[in-house]
Amino acid sequence: MAVKVYGLPMSTNTLRVLAALNEKDVEFELVIVDIRTGAHKQPNFLALNPFGQIPALEDGDLTLFESRAINRYIATKYAEAGSDLLLSSGTPAERAAVEVWLEVESQQFGPPIAALVFEALIKPMLGGTTDAAVVEAETAKLEKVLDVYEARLAQNKYLAGAHFSLVDLNHAPYTNYLMKTPKASLITSRPHLLAWWQDVSSRPAWKKTVAALPF
Amino acid sequence: MAVKVYGLPMSTNTLRVLAALNEKDVEFELVIVDIRTGAHKQPNFLALNPFGQIPALEDGDLTLFESRAINRYIATKYAEAGSDLLLSSGTPAERAAVEVWLEVESQQFGPPIAALVFEALIKPMLGGTTDAAVVEAETAKLEKVLDVYEARLAQNKYLAGAHFSLVDLNHAPYTNYLMKTPKASLITSRPHLLAWWQDVSSRPAWKKTVAALPF
Repeated sequence: MAVKVYGLPMSTNTLRVLAALNEKDVEFELVIVDIRTGAHKQPNFLALNPFGQIPALEDGDLTLFESRAINRYIATKYAEAGSDLLLSSGTPAERAAVEVWLEVESQQFGPPIAALVFEALIKPMLGGTTDAAVVEAETAKLEKVLDVYEARLAQNKYLAGAHFSLVDLNHAPYTNYLMKTPKASLITSRPHLLAWWQDVSSRPAWKKTVAALPF
Repeated sequence: MAVKVYGLPMSTNTLRVLAALNEKDVEFELVIVDIRTGAHKQPNFLALNPFGQIPALEDGDLTLFESRAINRYIATKYAEAGSDLLLSSGTPAERAAVEVWLEVESQQFGPPIAALVFEALIKPMLGGTTDAAVVEAETAKLEKVLDVYEARLAQNKYLAGAHFSLVDLNHAPYTNYLMKTPKASLITSRPHLLAWWQDVSSRPAWKKTVAALPF
């Protein structure tokens, strides 16, 4: 029985999971939960995720939510398929770097880029008006984070070190959207970050993932 | 050589790491990084964590930062000592629950409780004035999260299921501070959540951890 993903392809958190499944070449069924009609707050979805947020994943008897938790589950369950996303056969230093930079994505990169992408890209799509002051405030926060990334990527091809990992993958959905905003220069003005993004976004699994996007 | 923790005992993120080390009975040296004097933005600390935030951990040649990454490292390295914090010998469902609820702490519980504790407890300590509107807004967000927790803990003794895990431990620093604010009723008004907190906070390792706190 195929794994079921409950979500929307245009949701960054759903994309994060689809990217991991594609990277591992795992067959899945996408069950659309249309957050625009409030489907994520209905009892049948709340039974999957009591917080009422997409995505959720069903694998036989198991139900998971929180995209980063789902991705770690996929990376562990399908450790032998495709890339070793947690660098589990790496050195202690490589494995420690995976743990540290997974959290950097979650705690440092995630909040400002999510706020910036929402304000500059998603809000207008939903009929709202972008608040330029919010864009500038979040841009300033993200600049500081990306300066650290640029220095890191000047020394390492990927964020966790020499090898592509779940760290890079988890960054892809928001970076992809940032590149569609007027603030793409946050990436393009940093040569090592840009080279990293060109590498990460040209992976076949990622191309397959975004090919399903409506825009 | 003992593990070195760079941080401040009163910092919640530092406490999270100290609690894990105590739970595993690992000897450590605490190196004070006084954020009140800006020590976390000096070159010698930025060499440990380029984001300039406490805590950082040194274990021989390895350096880690981000408290949740450090705790996963500790739980994995000292898997055989004390509690099995990642339930690594548990069922697939138990291990999945650990992953999911570790992320729930990070993504759902963390942001509102951190904002609330800062506003109600830390800000006045630093000479500022609590903004009651911020307290109420963050309380409203946290209420929704804790309603889900209460339902979860009505069915399970601990957040990941039947066993104490890193999930519970990672929640302890902010819950401990919340109990010292006028919003302690967020916990005490929810009987299963209160019973959980009484259990978690009475563990010898946690008592040892908070005994080092200045208040």
